[in-house]
Amino acid sequence: MKIIVEEKTALTAHAEFRVRFSEVDAMDIVWHGNYARYFEDAREAFGEKYKIGFHDILQAGYTTPLVELSFNYKRPLLYGQKAKVEVFYKKTDAAKVILEYEIRDYESSMLLATGRTVQVFLDRQNQLVLSNPDFYLEWKRRNGL
Amino acid sequence: MKIIVEEKTALTAHAEFRVRFSEVDAMDIVWHGNYARYFEDAREAFGEKYKIGFHDILQAGYTTPLVELSFNYKRPLLYGQKAKVEVFYKKTDAAKVILEYEIRDYESSMLLATGRTVQVFLDRQNQLVLSNPDFYLEWKRRNGL
Amino acid sequence: MKIIVEEKTALTAHAEFRVRFSEVDAMDIVWHGNYARYFEDAREAFGEKYKIGFHDILQAGYTTPLVELSFNYKRPLLYGQKAKVEVFYKKTDAAKVILEYEIRDYESSMLLATGRTVQVFLDRQNQLVLSNPDFYLEWKRRNGL
Amino acid sequence: MKIIVEEKTALTAHAEFRVRFSEVDAMDIVWHGNYARYFEDAREAFGEKYKIGFHDILQAGYTTPLVELSFNYKRPLLYGQKAKVEVFYKKTDAAKVILEYEIRDYESSMLLATGRTVQVFLDRQNQLVLSNPDFYLEWKRRNGL
Repeated sequence: MKIIVEEKTALTAHAEFRVRFSEVDAMDIVWHGNYARYFEDAREAFGEKYKIGFHDILQAGYTTPLVELSFNYKRPLLYGQKAKVEVFYKKTDAAKVILEYEIRDYESSMLLATGRTVQVFLDRQNQLVLSNPDFYLEWKRRNGL
Repeated sequence: MKIIVEEKTALTAHAEFRVRFSEVDAMDIVWHGNYARYFEDAREAFGEKYKIGFHDILQAGYTTPLVELSFNYKRPLLYGQKAKVEVFYKKTDAAKVILEYEIRDYESSMLLATGRTVQVFLDRQNQLVLSNPDFYLEWKRRNGL
Repeated sequence: MKIIVEEKTALTAHAEFRVRFSEVDAMDIVWHGNYARYFEDAREAFGEKYKIGFHDILQAGYTTPLVELSFNYKRPLLYGQKAKVEVFYKKTDAAKVILEYEIRDYESSMLLATGRTVQVFLDRQNQLVLSNPDFYLEWKRRNGL
Repeated sequence: MKIIVEEKTALTAHAEFRVRFSEVDAMDIVWHGNYARYFEDAREAFGEKYKIGFHDILQAGYTTPLVELSFNYKRPLLYGQKAKVEVFYKKTDAAKVILEYEIRDYESSMLLATGRTVQVFLDRQNQLVLSNPDFYLEWKRRNGL
């Protein structure tokens, strides 16, 4: 039996945002579902920085839908609040992209939320790919993983 | 010069909805941008009822992006409120789909909002189609327009 | 040390939905963040059925923001697909509301996604309440828990 | 009879954005309803620049819900595209806030969409205010209108 381990890496990216009026709910805090957009902002920054964005992956013949997404809400995000969302790439031998997230207040760096996404690879026939695609192995090598 | 007129028709469809918690903003009323979803619900009901939905149009070789969208907000929609959104097809000679909308309280029928969308036809090369596609002329005929 | 256990209960509710055009992304499947709305639909149905909705809780002097939210995506949801989202109440001694969710295809009952939310109680001063509020203990009793 | 005229002013603000994956629909263009968020970004920038944001108005004892919102879509916005949204304040004697919007490609300045919002003033009892609130008259004066 092969144990799949995950390891921290130095690969990280971030995005900044200011809470929009439309993101806040009747409790005057950001509606929990909207955090998926903040994570996406960080993921897109990561994809652009490390050349592994939606279009890079599509060009290699794959898409990478999410199979897991989780949030831990620690402190509320308020209307107008400026915040930073960071994403950290986790190394794994599985044919997956595993990312972890932290949202912090922009000024105080207070931790507001954490989360995690797991993405798999589908080929052009929308079939799940069980072993690492060549382009992904190559990408890992280029990034010293 | 040809004057394009719009005429009321008997073609109408509707959808019902209950205001979700996530749709309400910090003023405790539905955030204005969310009305686009209610209109969409009515438009989809219309597409299904009259066989002119997204997939019907796609199969005929076209897409119909919106070129105009407008809302008139008359009374606020509140969290938990049950409402009905009706859509009315407007006849026109132009190669367009023109729809008008009314949102009413489900119980009292009080008018809460109105609106309008205009859609054009793009062909498979994403080029604007200036004359009515055959399938659309045929659809109009079938519906007595 | 007190071990907090969670137990299944018979308390369940559900909602039905049809995937909207606006919920689908460029991969032609529902964008992962939109599942939060489906869970919300089930949670609201639960709140209404068992008289523990947002307004019931507010009237008792509390709000119940989410502290955890997770999704497991098993099969894609497609535009136009009709589905059912069920929610199951988990019993716990902690001052929390723990709910689990299942999304299934409406016709085939095929499992499409699962998930979980954990909510805590805040009082009128927005302070975390560590022991079960009286109204919640009473609610549990009324429901045989 | 008093004719209400609207006049252009020099008061303007803008925001920049990059189209997110989640904002794009199955036609691979930004879903029309999402433009409301871009307009909001510009409106918030305007509110902050000229000290007439949601909280400024709330502090003066009012809220300003939208009563009209319209969009003209001229060219599609694509995933990843960088764009700029500008907002222009229109002078009026009515007790309203009238704003016009332009979305342009960030690089080429090509016009992609225009729009307009009209907001009214509600007092603390949520009653419509028919004459200009003092704080708004004072704000206009301070801004040379």
